Amino acid sequence: MNDEKVLLDHGSGGKISHAMISEMILPAFDNPLLAKLDDGAELSINGSRLAFSTDSYVVDPIFFPGGNIGDLAVNGTVNDVSMCGAVPQYISVGLILEEGFPADDLKKILSTMGQAAARAGVQVVTGDTKVVPRGKADRIFINTAGIGVIPEGVRVSGDQARPGDKVIVSGTMADHGITILSAREGLKLSSGIQSDSAPLNHMVQAILAAGKESVHVLRDPTRGGLGTTLNEIASQSNAGIRIEEASLPYKGEVLGTCELLGFDPLYIANEGKLICVAAPEIADQVLEAIRQDEFGGSAAIIGEVTQDHPGRVILETRIGGERIVDMLTGEQLPRIC
Amino acid sequence: MNDEKVLLDHGSGGKISHAMISEMILPAFDNPLLAKLDDGAELSINGSRLAFSTDSYVVDPIFFPGGNIGDLAVNGTVNDVSMCGAVPQYISVGLILEEGFPADDLKKILSTMGQAAARAGVQVVTGDTKVVPRGKADRIFINTAGIGVIPEGVRVSGDQARPGDKVIVSGTMADHGITILSAREGLKLSSGIQSDSAPLNHMVQAILAAGKESVHVLRDPTRGGLGTTLNEIASQSNAGIRIEEASLPYKGEVLGTCELLGFDPLYIANEGKLICVAAPEIADQVLEAIRQDEFGGSAAIIGEVTQDHPGRVILETRIGGERIVDMLTGEQLPRIC
Repeated sequence: MNDEKVLLDHGSGGKISHAMISEMILPAFDNPLLAKLDDGAELSINGSRLAFSTDSYVVDPIFFPGGNIGDLAVNGTVNDVSMCGAVPQYISVGLILEEGFPADDLKKILSTMGQAAARAGVQVVTGDTKVVPRGKADRIFINTAGIGVIPEGVRVSGDQARPGDKVIVSGTMADHGITILSAREGLKLSSGIQSDSAPLNHMVQAILAAGKESVHVLRDPTRGGLGTTLNEIASQSNAGIRIEEASLPYKGEVLGTCELLGFDPLYIANEGKLICVAAPEIADQVLEAIRQDEFGGSAAIIGEVTQDHPGRVILETRIGGERIVDMLTGEQLPRIC
Repeated sequence: MNDEKVLLDHGSGGKISHAMISEMILPAFDNPLLAKLDDGAELSINGSRLAFSTDSYVVDPIFFPGGNIGDLAVNGTVNDVSMCGAVPQYISVGLILEEGFPADDLKKILSTMGQAAARAGVQVVTGDTKVVPRGKADRIFINTAGIGVIPEGVRVSGDQARPGDKVIVSGTMADHGITILSAREGLKLSSGIQSDSAPLNHMVQAILAAGKESVHVLRDPTRGGLGTTLNEIASQSNAGIRIEEASLPYKGEVLGTCELLGFDPLYIANEGKLICVAAPEIADQVLEAIRQDEFGGSAAIIGEVTQDHPGRVILETRIGGERIVDMLTGEQLPRIC
């Protein structure tokens, strides 16, 4: 660790995050389930396969176009559980509140959480509230953990990508990150954009119904965006991934904002999108299933898994060139979720 | 809510906490499992009964005699799951770190968490790390959530206390809260005291082996202490509880510190003690089972459940008088866990 202090970069989801996880966190807990580094863990309890996942939410601002920290916290864990191929069922909620936080804001956030849970069809069954003195936290932090059931025959994990598989994304990339950035900095550049925060559990069930055992990987490209998540999959599966710039779905305003501010949209977070890696023979059915979903209208096949360059992600540019999509070292945008 | 702002009292576990839970949190999620208000929720998944619980830890100081925020976070959730009568198996860990937090402290805390998990026999299987800018959090906050399996025939819940049942505590009360207070304020009064932070899952299994279906309630008196937790049980079960001051186990230094500072030890937190309410015919076997446990040497029967004064807790004083042990309104000691 640089200077032996925790840096913002340690929370980025990029290389420095991964180094901290592998050097400090995995050795402390020494556990093969944790070491798989999927969005959630797959557990076996009394013969049932369960998925279990957690995330803390520290997004700034807490209210933004398209959502607030509350539905983000519910959708985020619903999605992490779903990315294990599971049907999410139960959610826990841990609130850390700063003394002086307005009760009206708390009511709004809780109410949004309740609506998000109802929309996803999950139940909030247990929780905890802590309050710290003024100045000891920034308004509100929310942790959620979730449990889901993995149906028989489903086996998705970051290490299951195979050469020849198609790589599909469920819609436009980078909307959430650019929305948060614009809201935080008061930018007027991208007034039409809003967060894509959404529950993806119904989409995942449709994908699995279409693709069955041929669906190999499901991941939601949150912190670190598409570029980071594809690198994780390539590394876990020890396979190469090749994507085409021209196939990547983006909203025009999002690309424009990224260009103006010098951000690479490949690394900007999403909160209602998934990556699906599936066998080529079912890729079209999977794509169609995603497009039928409420949140999948602009889904696209963006590339494929290769035998070449294992562990690396290569982007074919619009003008026919190639570049390596590396994992970022640190943080482009802090506190986006 | 007073002045429509969140107050430290809302995190106290006392009356104001309970009002916020019933007025704001329960309506937002409208869920009978959550509404039971036990330490964890009992879930039914594919025919298995599971317990699911979460807590966030914001204790100040983060290192204290007898432990640190790390083992507190593991033991706390192990215990909450155990208080559902379950065998805890899996834990999630969500870290919120302040930028600049010393890496050495983080290593120490993670290593303690790993040791605590190993001691309790649970696995840390999934996690998340967020970093917020300097000044936006106080060093480190930890959320843990846990899953356990409830064995067949076990049915413990805060609403199961019945008139005639005996009330047992597993050891000396108030050690944790007084340790934290002393460490935070730099008091030299109670140099021999340390936190009782400990995993109670093995003790719970011994209790259930001794008492079977006759064990009615298990609770760990953390925030709000014995007084608050007994009030919760009396209210959930709509029964009275009568305890004897002379039977309450306390360390001399703890009582001395409380007296000097004007704290009522009935409301001071514990992190490695439980309350067991069990049918009178098996109370002695349960007491013996607790005393055989590593953390139960000073267990005692402290009173019983009554038909009289339902919802109320009455203390028989040493001099033969009686007083109502009400639930505190707010916070005696903030940030004790």
